[in-house]
Amino acid sequence: MYDMILAHVGGHISLTEEEEAYFTSLLSTIEVNKRSFLVRPGALIEHEYFVVQGCLKAYYLDESGDKHIIQFAVENWWVGDFDAFYNQVNSRLYIEALENSTLMAISYNDLQQLFERVPKFERYFRLLVTNAFISLRGRVLSSLEKSLKERYLEFCMAYPNIEKRVANYHIANYLGASPESLSRIRRKLVKSA
Amino acid sequence: MYDMILAHVGGHISLTEEEEAYFTSLLSTIEVNKRSFLVRPGALIEHEYFVVQGCLKAYYLDESGDKHIIQFAVENWWVGDFDAFYNQVNSRLYIEALENSTLMAISYNDLQQLFERVPKFERYFRLLVTNAFISLRGRVLSSLEKSLKERYLEFCMAYPNIEKRVANYHIANYLGASPESLSRIRRKLVKSA
Repeated sequence: MYDMILAHVGGHISLTEEEEAYFTSLLSTIEVNKRSFLVRPGALIEHEYFVVQGCLKAYYLDESGDKHIIQFAVENWWVGDFDAFYNQVNSRLYIEALENSTLMAISYNDLQQLFERVPKFERYFRLLVTNAFISLRGRVLSSLEKSLKERYLEFCMAYPNIEKRVANYHIANYLGASPESLSRIRRKLVKSA
Repeated sequence: MYDMILAHVGGHISLTEEEEAYFTSLLSTIEVNKRSFLVRPGALIEHEYFVVQGCLKAYYLDESGDKHIIQFAVENWWVGDFDAFYNQVNSRLYIEALENSTLMAISYNDLQQLFERVPKFERYFRLLVTNAFISLRGRVLSSLEKSLKERYLEFCMAYPNIEKRVANYHIANYLGASPESLSRIRRKLVKSA
């Protein structure tokens, strides 16, 4: 059950068996049904989540009620509202399952304990959040200058095979495009493949 | 000379005198004159920089040659091209001094050594990059829904007093607005203060 998360951690830091056992003792397993919510605005966020199986979207409704998808999460991704989690403020996000999903959850207090007892995890999360920062900044730069086709191809690289799991209009929303424009581009790419 | 950077580090982790001495032995001091470049596109980025004194802007030119300011850095900020630094690829950014500036630089290899010899620094940089990620995501969300006035006030909170040091058109560029719109808002705020 813990194989996937331990393999992911092991790709960044080396743990002893005792450290693995301690880490997994802090995790709880959560099942979220398709179309159910893991996080809703206004909630205090006590956990971060690692996706073992499934697919979720994190989004935000603006004042006019328009939805903005800011992240998809599939196997081996961490998902949560980091702002609300780290600053212990209320969430502004929705995180909704697009498929029946299995997640590992770690609480804020347990994570602080983990950092104290196994400081190597500072490194693991430093590497993860550095990558997340770099990719978010890359996404901002791409939105300034790249065509929708280029941004769609970057998206397919970042989320391999997700285009078969997530509806076209969700991907279009994430890319800040209309579903029609994205469909046109996807049809052209299929033809030229 | 090292007081400021040690105070900043000390705000996040506790170092022994030996650790402080080792850390500062890895730093070199760099002076950058106003209008000079710290980083240019195409360069391999060997260092990250801590601002001891001065003010810099990090920006990016898109394919049509339009400038997009993505960060200002003043005292106590780290600045660099994190993508190029961590992934050891060529930079895509310009970092230019807006005032004569004094920086502390640490090289990629020295930073890796520092993480090995004083793993507490994993925590320091994890906390910093987590905050940077949260504030970048916050900026993306703000750009989706907040008015220019709200975004300008957020900017003044994030960079206290910078509005006196940086030209109006630079701040407007960072906020994705025209200099005229920003001037109008700043005049109204001064009147209502």
